[in-house]
Amino acid sequence: MLPLQLQLTLPSWIGDVADTQRRYVSDEERVGLAIELSRQNVARGSGGPFGAAVFEADSGRLMAVGVNRVLPQSCSLAHAETMALMLAQQRAGQPRLNQAGGRYVLASSAQPCCQCYGALVWAGIDALLIGARAEDVEALAHFDEGPLPADWVGELTRRRIAVRRDILRDSARTVLAAYGAGGTPY
Amino acid sequence: MLPLQLQLTLPSWIGDVADTQRRYVSDEERVGLAIELSRQNVARGSGGPFGAAVFEADSGRLMAVGVNRVLPQSCSLAHAETMALMLAQQRAGQPRLNQAGGRYVLASSAQPCCQCYGALVWAGIDALLIGARAEDVEALAHFDEGPLPADWVGELTRRRIAVRRDILRDSARTVLAAYGAGGTPY
Repeated sequence: MLPLQLQLTLPSWIGDVADTQRRYVSDEERVGLAIELSRQNVARGSGGPFGAAVFEADSGRLMAVGVNRVLPQSCSLAHAETMALMLAQQRAGQPRLNQAGGRYVLASSAQPCCQCYGALVWAGIDALLIGARAEDVEALAHFDEGPLPADWVGELTRRRIAVRRDILRDSARTVLAAYGAGGTPY
Repeated sequence: MLPLQLQLTLPSWIGDVADTQRRYVSDEERVGLAIELSRQNVARGSGGPFGAAVFEADSGRLMAVGVNRVLPQSCSLAHAETMALMLAQQRAGQPRLNQAGGRYVLASSAQPCCQCYGALVWAGIDALLIGARAEDVEALAHFDEGPLPADWVGELTRRRIAVRRDILRDSARTVLAAYGAGGTPY
């Protein structure tokens, strides 16, 4: 029998960290949540050291979050950014978040890898907020970020996706370094 | 309430087209199945004009298939290639298909877009078989393929993923052209 369905889940502790009543207004608050998700994901043993979140750009309302679930779910697609995007789209009932109006932001604890980079091109977001740089991910946590277009930022901005980097970069680096050293990122 | 789970499904007609008893031995048989899936997906109204399949390289055994499910599932990640890869990984219980040995092939009716390109880097496949070219997808079916690394084939081959193109390209182009013209691809 060929498999015809697939279920992907986030860990149950998400509700302890992500606050649906709060309005996440600044870039730092938004990436801060993504980094806290990355930290908790390692501390609680539910996946790799990456977190992401999708917000309504203007209200700061949290639409969905994601953490890396590759190993627990046996799914190389289950990165933090892709989980957050898929869950936000499901909630919105739209495969391109901003297609019916509204503006959306994806915040990630680290620069998206080649897979998440490609995915965010189609997801209907208006801005990408990044904590750690790719070189941090590779040097500190020993993950491969994969091949990107040479001008990956320009490719996004030409598609009306603004890119803002180095937001709470030191905080994001701390989680990656602790993960890379085999410790608990607290 | 934040969404914590996501379900993705293939249409129920898949079993009419994909034959789990057959051994798909040649590149043409493998891409031929992907193209037939793309054709049926449009004809049956279950998504966009793209199909994909994952095979065990040596036996030709079919592991999983995928078709484009973006609109029916409100999910920009639900491309044919990503569906096939996720379902194959779930079946194998491995997030990187070839990590426990064995060799795997992904066949796609058309050149992977930027999202599927990035995804296949991590999926644990040993070869990528392609029907239509990116320019066919863009010119005939009016889809954007997105930004890729300049030497996208070289980036894969350096990661031990062989790339073979133009397999049954005319057949794949026929489906795309019919879709682009708004007709049923028969």
